[in-house]
Amino acid sequence: MNNTLIAQLNKAFCVLPGVGSKSAQRFIYYLLEKNKKSGIDLANSLLETMTHIKKCQQCRCLTQSDYCHICLSNKRDKTLLCIVETSYDIDIIEQSQSFNGIYFVLNGYLSPIDGIGVAELNLDQLEALLANNSIQEVVLATNATMEGLITAHYLSELIKKYQIKVTQIAHGVPLGGELEYSDINTICHAIKGRVVVE
Amino acid sequence: MNNTLIAQLNKAFCVLPGVGSKSAQRFIYYLLEKNKKSGIDLANSLLETMTHIKKCQQCRCLTQSDYCHICLSNKRDKTLLCIVETSYDIDIIEQSQSFNGIYFVLNGYLSPIDGIGVAELNLDQLEALLANNSIQEVVLATNATMEGLITAHYLSELIKKYQIKVTQIAHGVPLGGELEYSDINTICHAIKGRVVVE
Repeated sequence: MNNTLIAQLNKAFCVLPGVGSKSAQRFIYYLLEKNKKSGIDLANSLLETMTHIKKCQQCRCLTQSDYCHICLSNKRDKTLLCIVETSYDIDIIEQSQSFNGIYFVLNGYLSPIDGIGVAELNLDQLEALLANNSIQEVVLATNATMEGLITAHYLSELIKKYQIKVTQIAHGVPLGGELEYSDINTICHAIKGRVVVE
Repeated sequence: MNNTLIAQLNKAFCVLPGVGSKSAQRFIYYLLEKNKKSGIDLANSLLETMTHIKKCQQCRCLTQSDYCHICLSNKRDKTLLCIVETSYDIDIIEQSQSFNGIYFVLNGYLSPIDGIGVAELNLDQLEALLANNSIQEVVLATNATMEGLITAHYLSELIKKYQIKVTQIAHGVPLGGELEYSDINTICHAIKGRVVVE
Protein backbone atom coordinates (compact mmCIF):
# COMPACT_ATOMS: atom_id res chain seq x y z
CA MET A 1 0.00 0.00 0.00
CA ASN A 2 3.00 2.24 0.59
CA ASN A 3 0.86 4.20 3.05
CA THR A 4 2.89 5.52 5.93
CA LEU A 5 -0.29 6.25 7.90
CA ILE A 6 -1.43 2.64 7.66
CA ALA A 7 2.05 1.34 8.51
CA GLN A 8 2.14 3.64 11.54
CA LEU A 9 -1.30 2.52 12.69
CA ASN A 10 -0.31 -1.12 12.24
CA LYS A 11 2.65 -0.57 14.57
CA ALA A 12 0.40 1.21 17.08
CA PHE A 13 -2.09 -1.70 17.13
CA CYS A 14 0.73 -4.24 17.63
CA VAL A 15 1.30 -2.78 21.11
CA LEU A 16 -1.93 -4.47 22.28
CA PRO A 17 -1.42 -7.86 23.97
CA GLY A 18 -1.92 -10.74 21.54
CA VAL A 19 -2.15 -8.51 18.47
CA GLY A 20 0.39 -9.09 15.69
CA SER A 21 0.92 -7.38 12.38
CA LYS A 22 -1.58 -9.64 10.56
CA SER A 23 -4.43 -9.02 13.02
CA ALA A 24 -3.58 -5.31 13.04
CA GLN A 25 -3.83 -5.21 9.25
CA ARG A 26 -7.22 -6.96 9.38
CA PHE A 27 -8.46 -4.41 11.94
CA ILE A 28 -7.28 -1.50 9.81
CA TYR A 29 -8.75 -2.70 6.52
CA TYR A 30 -11.98 -3.66 8.20
CA LEU A 31 -12.35 -0.17 9.71
CA LEU A 32 -11.26 1.69 6.59
CA GLU A 33 -13.32 -0.29 4.11
CA LYS A 34 -16.40 -1.24 6.07
CA ASN A 35 -16.75 0.81 9.22
CA LYS A 36 -14.92 4.14 9.22
CA LYS A 37 -17.32 5.66 11.75
CA SER A 38 -16.56 2.94 14.30
CA GLY A 39 -12.86 3.59 13.77
CA ILE A 40 -13.32 7.25 14.63
CA ASP A 41 -15.50 6.35 17.63
CA LEU A 42 -12.82 3.91 18.85
CA ALA A 43 -10.12 6.58 18.51
CA ASN A 44 -12.14 9.17 20.42
CA SER A 45 -13.19 6.74 23.13
CA LEU A 46 -9.59 5.55 23.52
CA LEU A 47 -8.27 9.09 23.79
CA GLU A 48 -10.92 10.06 26.36
CA THR A 49 -10.28 6.95 28.46
CA MET A 50 -6.49 7.36 28.39
CA THR A 51 -6.85 11.00 29.41
CA HIS A 52 -9.49 10.74 32.13
CA ILE A 53 -8.89 7.42 33.86
CA LYS A 54 -6.49 7.61 36.79
CA LYS A 55 -5.60 5.50 39.83
CA CYS A 56 -7.63 5.58 43.04
CA GLN A 57 -5.54 7.33 45.69
CA GLN A 58 -6.31 4.63 48.24
CA CYS A 59 -6.53 1.28 46.47
CA ARG A 60 -4.77 2.19 43.17
CA CYS A 61 -7.53 0.69 41.00
CA LEU A 62 -8.52 2.50 37.81
CA THR A 63 -11.19 5.14 38.25
CA GLN A 64 -12.51 8.39 36.81
CA SER A 65 -12.31 10.30 40.12
CA ASP A 66 -9.69 10.68 42.86
CA TYR A 67 -11.16 7.76 44.83
CA CYS A 68 -12.93 4.74 43.33
CA HIS A 69 -16.58 3.94 44.05
CA ILE A 70 -15.57 0.96 46.21
CA CYS A 71 -13.31 2.98 48.52
CA LEU A 72 -15.97 5.70 48.76
CA SER A 73 -18.91 3.35 49.35
CA ASN A 74 -20.23 3.07 52.92
CA LYS A 75 -21.80 -0.31 52.14
CA ARG A 76 -18.41 -2.05 51.95
CA ASP A 77 -16.75 -3.77 54.87
CA LYS A 78 -13.68 -1.61 55.54
CA THR A 79 -12.17 -4.19 57.92
CA LEU A 80 -11.66 -6.67 55.07
CA LEU A 81 -8.95 -5.99 52.49
CA CYS A 82 -8.32 -8.05 49.35
CA ILE A 83 -4.98 -7.72 47.55
CA VAL A 84 -5.00 -8.33 43.79
CA GLU A 85 -2.54 -7.76 40.97
CA THR A 86 -4.60 -5.62 38.60
CA SER A 87 -7.79 -3.60 38.43
CA TYR A 88 -9.05 -6.26 36.03
CA ASP A 89 -8.88 -8.80 38.88
CA ILE A 90 -11.19 -6.53 40.91
CA ASP A 91 -13.62 -6.62 38.00
CA ILE A 92 -13.60 -10.42 38.03
CA ILE A 93 -14.08 -10.67 41.82
CA GLU A 94 -16.86 -8.06 41.75
CA GLN A 95 -18.62 -10.08 39.04
CA SER A 96 -18.59 -13.10 41.38
CA GLN A 97 -20.44 -11.01 44.02
CA SER A 98 -18.63 -12.99 46.71
CA PHE A 99 -16.61 -10.23 48.37
CA ASN A 100 -17.80 -7.12 50.15
CA GLY A 101 -14.57 -5.63 51.46
CA ILE A 102 -12.15 -3.17 49.90
CA TYR A 103 -9.20 -3.80 47.60
CA PHE A 104 -5.55 -2.97 47.09
CA VAL A 105 -3.96 -3.24 43.62
CA LEU A 106 -0.32 -4.36 43.43
CA ASN A 107 0.21 -3.45 39.77
CA GLY A 108 2.74 -6.24 39.37
CA TYR A 109 4.36 -9.18 41.10
CA LEU A 110 7.75 -9.63 42.66
CA SER A 111 9.89 -10.98 39.85
CA PRO A 112 13.65 -10.67 40.38
CA ILE A 113 14.30 -11.89 36.81
CA ASP A 114 12.40 -8.89 35.42
CA GLY A 115 13.98 -6.54 37.95
CA ILE A 116 10.78 -6.09 39.96
CA GLY A 117 11.62 -6.04 43.65
CA VAL A 118 9.81 -4.79 46.74
CA ALA A 119 10.72 -1.17 45.92
CA GLU A 120 9.09 -1.36 42.47
CA LEU A 121 5.77 -2.54 43.94
CA ASN A 122 5.76 0.61 46.08
CA LEU A 123 3.85 -0.75 49.07
CA ASP A 124 3.85 2.45 51.17
CA GLN A 125 0.13 3.00 50.56
CA LEU A 126 -0.58 -0.59 51.61
CA GLU A 127 1.48 -0.24 54.80
CA ALA A 128 -0.30 3.03 55.63
CA LEU A 129 -3.60 1.21 55.27
CA LEU A 130 -2.42 -1.68 57.47
CA ALA A 131 -1.02 0.71 60.08
CA ASN A 132 -4.23 2.64 60.69
CA ASN A 133 -5.73 -0.28 62.68
CA SER A 134 -9.00 -0.58 60.75
CA ILE A 135 -8.17 -3.74 58.76
CA GLN A 136 -8.91 -7.05 60.52
CA GLU A 137 -8.32 -9.51 57.68
CA VAL A 138 -6.32 -9.39 54.46
CA VAL A 139 -7.30 -11.81 51.67
CA LEU A 140 -4.46 -12.56 49.25
CA ALA A 141 -5.96 -13.04 45.78
CA THR A 142 -2.81 -13.12 43.66
CA ASN A 143 -2.63 -15.42 40.65
CA ALA A 144 -1.73 -19.06 41.29
CA THR A 145 1.49 -18.63 39.28
CA MET A 146 5.06 -18.78 40.57
CA GLU A 147 5.32 -14.97 40.76
CA GLY A 148 1.86 -14.64 42.29
CA LEU A 149 2.57 -17.20 45.00
CA ILE A 150 5.99 -15.73 45.83
CA THR A 151 4.42 -12.28 46.12
CA ALA A 152 1.64 -13.68 48.33
CA HIS A 153 4.25 -15.25 50.59
CA TYR A 154 6.13 -11.95 50.90
CA LEU A 155 2.91 -10.05 51.61
CA SER A 156 1.78 -12.52 54.27
CA GLU A 157 5.05 -11.98 56.17
CA LEU A 158 4.65 -8.21 55.85
CA ILE A 159 1.02 -8.19 57.01
CA LYS A 160 1.64 -10.48 60.00
CA LYS A 161 3.94 -7.79 61.42
CA TYR A 162 0.82 -5.69 61.91
CA GLN A 163 -0.93 -8.54 63.83
CA ILE A 164 -3.57 -8.81 61.11
CA LYS A 165 -5.15 -12.12 60.04
CA VAL A 166 -3.99 -13.19 56.56
CA THR A 167 -5.96 -15.56 54.31
CA GLN A 168 -5.44 -16.73 50.76
CA ILE A 169 -8.09 -17.65 48.16
CA ALA A 170 -8.49 -21.43 47.74
CA HIS A 171 -6.57 -23.23 45.02
CA GLY A 172 -7.93 -26.50 43.70
CA VAL A 173 -9.88 -28.14 40.90
CA PRO A 174 -11.97 -25.44 39.17
CA LEU A 175 -15.75 -25.84 39.13
CA GLY A 176 -16.77 -27.86 36.09
CA GLY A 177 -13.21 -29.21 35.93
CA GLU A 178 -12.40 -32.90 35.76
CA LEU A 179 -9.62 -34.58 37.78
CA GLU A 180 -8.49 -36.33 34.59
CA TYR A 181 -7.64 -33.00 32.94
CA SER A 182 -6.26 -31.19 35.99
CA ASP A 183 -2.52 -30.87 36.33
CA ILE A 184 -0.61 -32.58 39.13
CA ASN A 185 0.08 -29.35 41.07
CA THR A 186 -3.60 -28.47 41.13
CA ILE A 187 -4.52 -31.95 42.37
CA CYS A 188 -1.79 -31.65 44.98
CA HIS A 189 -3.20 -28.31 46.21
CA ALA A 190 -6.76 -29.63 46.12
CA ILE A 191 -5.90 -32.62 48.30
CA LYS A 192 -3.75 -30.68 50.77
CA GLY A 193 -6.44 -28.02 51.02
CA ARG A 194 -9.33 -30.46 51.49
CA VAL A 195 -12.14 -29.23 53.73
CA VAL A 196 -14.44 -31.08 56.12
CA VAL A 197 -17.86 -31.89 54.68
CA GLU A 198 -20.43 -30.91 57.28
CA MET B 1 -15.17 -0.95 37.82
CA ASN B 2 -18.39 0.94 37.23
CA ASN B 3 -16.51 3.12 34.77
CA THR B 4 -18.69 4.23 31.91
CA LEU B 5 -15.63 5.32 29.92
CA ILE B 6 -14.10 1.86 30.13
CA ALA B 7 -17.41 0.20 29.28
CA GLN B 8 -17.76 2.48 26.26
CA LEU B 9 -14.22 1.76 25.10
CA ASN B 10 -14.80 -1.97 25.53
CA LYS B 11 -17.80 -1.73 23.19
CA ALA B 12 -15.77 0.31 20.70
CA PHE B 13 -12.99 -2.32 20.64
CA CYS B 14 -15.50 -5.14 20.12
CA VAL B 15 -16.24 -3.74 16.65
CA LEU B 16 -12.85 -5.06 15.46
CA PRO B 17 -12.98 -8.47 13.75
CA GLY B 18 -12.18 -11.30 16.16
CA VAL B 19 -12.17 -9.08 19.25
CA GLY B 20 -14.64 -9.96 22.02
CA SER B 21 -15.35 -8.33 25.34
CA LYS B 22 -12.62 -10.31 27.16
CA SER B 23 -9.85 -9.37 24.71
CA ALA B 24 -11.10 -5.77 24.71
CA GLN B 25 -10.86 -5.67 28.51
CA ARG B 26 -7.30 -7.04 28.35
CA PHE B 27 -6.35 -4.35 25.81
CA ILE B 28 -7.84 -1.60 27.96
CA TYR B 29 -6.24 -2.65 31.25
CA TYR B 30 -2.92 -3.23 29.55
CA LEU B 31 -2.94 0.28 28.08
CA LEU B 32 -4.22 1.98 31.22
CA GLU B 33 -1.95 0.21 33.68
CA LYS B 34 1.20 -0.38 31.71
CA ASN B 35 1.32 1.73 28.57
CA LYS B 36 -0.86 4.84 28.57
CA LYS B 37 1.37 6.63 26.06
CA SER B 38 0.89 3.85 23.49
CA GLY B 39 -2.86 4.10 24.02
CA ILE B 40 -2.79 7.79 23.20
CA ASP B 41 -0.54 7.16 20.19
CA LEU B 42 -2.93 4.46 18.96
CA ALA B 43 -5.91 6.80 19.31
CA ASN B 44 -4.19 9.61 17.42
CA SER B 45 -2.88 7.33 14.70
CA LEU B 46 -6.33 5.77 14.30
CA LEU B 47 -8.03 9.14 14.05
CA GLU B 48 -5.51 10.40 11.51
CA THR B 49 -5.80 7.26 9.38
CA MET B 50 -9.61 7.26 9.45
CA THR B 51 -9.64 10.92 8.44
CA HIS B 52 -6.99 10.98 5.73
CA ILE B 53 -7.22 7.61 3.98
CA LYS B 54 -9.62 7.56 1.04
CA LYS B 55 -10.26 5.40 -2.01
CA CYS B 56 -8.24 5.73 -5.21
CA GLN B 57 -10.47 7.26 -7.86
CA GLN B 58 -9.40 4.68 -10.42
CA CYS B 59 -8.85 1.35 -8.65
CA ARG B 60 -10.71 2.07 -5.37
CA CYS B 61 -7.83 0.84 -3.19
CA LEU B 62 -7.06 2.73 0.02
CA THR B 63 -4.69 5.65 -0.41
CA GLN B 64 -3.70 9.00 1.07
CA SER B 65 -4.08 10.89 -2.23
CA ASP B 66 -6.73 11.00 -4.98
CA TYR B 67 -4.96 8.28 -6.95
CA CYS B 68 -2.86 5.44 -5.46
CA HIS B 69 0.84 5.03 -6.16
CA ILE B 70 0.16 1.98 -8.33
CA CYS B 71 -2.27 3.77 -10.65
CA LEU B 72 0.09 6.76 -10.85
CA SER B 73 3.27 4.73 -11.44
CA ASN B 74 4.64 4.60 -14.99
CA LYS B 75 6.54 1.42 -14.19
CA ARG B 76 3.37 -0.68 -14.02
CA ASP B 77 1.92 -2.56 -17.00
CA LYS B 78 -1.36 -0.71 -17.66
CA THR B 79 -2.57 -3.43 -20.06
CA LEU B 80 -2.82 -5.97 -17.23
CA LEU B 81 -5.62 -5.58 -14.68
CA CYS B 82 -6.05 -7.72 -11.56
CA ILE B 83 -9.42 -7.76 -9.80
CA VAL B 84 -9.36 -8.38 -6.02
CA GLU B 85 -11.90 -8.09 -3.22
CA THR B 86 -10.07 -5.76 -0.83
CA SER B 87 -7.10 -3.42 -0.61
CA TYR B 88 -5.60 -5.96 1.76
CA ASP B 89 -5.47 -8.48 -1.10
CA ILE B 90 -3.41 -5.95 -3.09
CA ASP B 91 -1.00 -5.80 -0.17
CA ILE B 92 -0.61 -9.59 -0.21
CA ILE B 93 -0.09 -9.77 -3.99
CA GLU B 94 2.40 -6.88 -3.89
CA GLN B 95 4.36 -8.70 -1.17
CA SER B 96 4.65 -11.70 -3.52
CA GLN B 97 6.28 -9.42 -6.14
CA SER B 98 4.70 -11.56 -8.84
CA PHE B 99 2.43 -8.99 -10.49
CA ASN B 100 3.30 -5.78 -12.27
CA GLY B 101 -0.08 -4.63 -13.60
CA ILE B 102 -2.75 -2.46 -12.06
CA TYR B 103 -5.63 -3.42 -9.78
CA PHE B 104 -9.35 -2.97 -9.29
CA VAL B 105 -10.93 -3.44 -5.84
CA LEU B 106 -14.45 -4.93 -5.68
CA ASN B 107 -15.09 -4.10 -2.02
CA GLY B 108 -17.32 -7.14 -1.64
CA TYR B 109 -18.59 -10.23 -3.40
CA LEU B 110 -21.92 -11.05 -4.98
CA SER B 111 -23.92 -12.63 -2.20
CA PRO B 112 -27.69 -12.71 -2.75
CA ILE B 113 -28.23 -14.00 0.81
CA ASP B 114 -26.67 -10.83 2.22
CA GLY B 115 -28.47 -8.66 -0.30
CA ILE B 116 -25.32 -7.85 -2.28
CA GLY B 117 -26.14 -7.88 -5.98
CA VAL B 118 -24.44 -6.42 -9.05
CA ALA B 119 -25.75 -2.91 -8.24
CA GLU B 120 -24.12 -2.95 -4.77
CA LEU B 121 -20.69 -3.76 -6.23
CA ASN B 122 -20.99 -0.61 -8.37
CA LEU B 123 -18.93 -1.76 -11.34
CA ASP B 124 -19.25 1.43 -13.44
CA GLN B 125 -15.62 2.37 -12.79
CA LEU B 126 -14.52 -1.12 -13.84
CA GLU B 127 -16.58 -0.96 -17.03
CA ALA B 128 -15.17 2.49 -17.83
CA LEU B 129 -11.67 1.01 -17.46
CA LEU B 130 -12.53 -1.97 -19.68
CA ALA B 131 -14.16 0.27 -22.30
CA ASN B 132 -11.16 2.54 -22.86
CA ASN B 133 -9.35 -0.18 -24.85
CA SER B 134 -6.08 -0.16 -22.90
CA ILE B 135 -6.59 -3.42 -20.93
CA GLN B 136 -5.49 -6.61 -22.70
CA GLU B 137 -5.83 -9.13 -19.88
CA VAL B 138 -7.87 -9.25 -16.68
CA VAL B 139 -6.65 -11.56 -13.89
CA LEU B 140 -9.41 -12.62 -11.49
CA ALA B 141 -7.88 -12.95 -8.02
CA THR B 142 -11.03 -13.38 -5.95
CA ASN B 143 -10.98 -15.71 -2.93
CA ALA B 144 -11.50 -19.41 -3.59
CA THR B 145 -14.76 -19.32 -1.60
CA MET B 146 -18.27 -19.85 -2.93
CA GLU B 147 -18.94 -16.08 -3.10
CA GLY B 148 -15.52 -15.39 -4.59
CA LEU B 149 -15.94 -17.99 -7.33
CA ILE B 150 -19.49 -16.90 -8.18
CA THR B 151 -18.29 -13.29 -8.43
CA ALA B 152 -15.37 -14.38 -10.61
CA HIS B 153 -17.78 -16.19 -12.92
CA TYR B 154 -20.01 -13.13 -13.23
CA LEU B 155 -17.01 -10.89 -13.89
CA SER B 156 -15.59 -13.21 -16.56
CA GLU B 157 -18.88 -13.00 -18.48
CA LEU B 158 -18.89 -9.21 -18.14
CA ILE B 159 -15.27 -8.82 -19.27
CA LYS B 160 -15.62 -11.13 -22.27
CA LYS B 161 -18.18 -8.69 -23.70
CA TYR B 162 -15.29 -6.26 -24.18
CA GLN B 163 -13.26 -8.91 -26.07
CA ILE B 164 -10.61 -8.92 -23.34
CA LYS B 165 -8.69 -12.05 -22.28
CA VAL B 166 -9.77 -13.26 -18.82
CA THR B 167 -7.56 -15.40 -16.57
CA GLN B 168 -7.98 -16.65 -13.02
CA ILE B 169 -5.28 -17.29 -10.39
CA ALA B 170 -4.46 -21.00 -9.99
CA HIS B 171 -6.21 -23.01 -7.29
CA GLY B 172 -4.53 -26.12 -5.96
CA VAL B 173 -2.44 -27.56 -3.15
CA PRO B 174 -0.65 -24.67 -1.39
CA LEU B 175 3.14 -24.67 -1.30
CA GLY B 176 4.32 -26.56 1.76
CA GLY B 177 0.92 -28.26 1.86
CA GLU B 178 0.48 -32.02 2.04
CA LEU B 179 -2.07 -33.97 -0.01
CA GLU B 180 -3.06 -35.83 3.16
CA TYR B 181 -4.25 -32.63 4.78
CA SER B 182 -5.77 -30.96 1.71
CA ASP B 183 -9.54 -31.04 1.34
CA ILE B 184 -11.20 -32.93 -1.51
CA ASN B 185 -12.20 -29.79 -3.42
CA THR B 186 -8.63 -28.52 -3.44
CA ILE B 187 -7.35 -31.89 -4.69
CA CYS B 188 -10.07 -31.87 -7.34
CA HIS B 189 -9.01 -28.39 -8.52
CA ALA B 190 -5.34 -29.35 -8.40
CA ILE B 191 -5.85 -32.40 -10.58
CA LYS B 192 -8.17 -30.68 -13.08
CA GLY B 193 -5.75 -27.75 -13.31
CA ARG B 194 -2.61 -29.89 -13.72
CA VAL B 195 0.09 -28.37 -15.92
CA VAL B 196 2.59 -29.98 -18.30
CA VAL B 197 6.06 -30.45 -16.81
CA GLU B 198 8.56 -29.22 -19.42
